[in-house]
Formats: sequence, C-alpha cells, structure tokens
Amino acid sequence: MCEANAYLIKGEEEEIIMEAVDTVKPEDDGLKLTSIFGEQKFLKARIHSLSLVDHKVFLKE
Amino acid sequence: MCEANAYLIKGEEEEIIMEAVDTVKPEDDGLKLTSIFGEQKFLKARIHSLSLVDHKVFLKE
Repeated sequence: MCEANAYLIKGEEEEIIMEAVDTVKPEDDGLKLTSIFGEQKFLKARIHSLSLVDHKVFLKE
Repeated sequence: MCEANAYLIKGEEEEIIMEAVDTVKPEDDGLKLTSIFGEQKFLKARIHSLSLVDHKVFLKE
C-alpha cells in the first residue's frame, strides 16, 4: 500500500489530520479526505505540498 | 518506495507529467516537482487531487 499521513500546516506547526490517506478530492470549498479504511473527513483547506517517499501530504487553510 | 505519477488534467484528458514523483512544492506561481531520481520540473499548476493507493497525483492549471 502507498498511503500517506495528512498534516495541516498551522504557522510553524503541523497537526496530523488523518493517517493512511488514500484519496484527497476537492469538494465544495474544501477537501474530502478518505483513508484506506474508508474513514472520511471534510476540511476547509487546500493541498499545499507533498512528500510522498516520507508518506506526507501537507494541507493548508 | 511510495512515489506516484503526476498527471495534468486537461478537460476530459490527463497528460502524464512526471513518473516516480517524490515531492511537490509550491514555488513562485506554480509547482516544483521532484522525482525519486532527482529530476525536477516546474509547472504553472496547482495540486488538484490525490489517489495515493493508485499512485496518482492530479494537477490542474
């Protein structure tokens, strides 16, 4: 599997939002995250950057 | 390794931009993509969506 963890960038800090993220899709004015377990979260943010070998997806409001 | 392929969404079509992408970072008014081989590309686009289990990163202008 090739999932990643999603982090929300808040200033100098990074808050983990969801582990084992599979898909991130734009929905309304935010993002819908779905994990490999089927868990879903909606967040008013955009995708900021990726570091896939480190399994990291960074989001920003 | 957990790299993905980056595709640019153009209407109904998806054009492959880079294989084996490691990092995607905002730079100036676009994105800098770096592959696991160190190859770099700059693109005037934003990250649209992710499908990580499928190893796909979708970009949009």
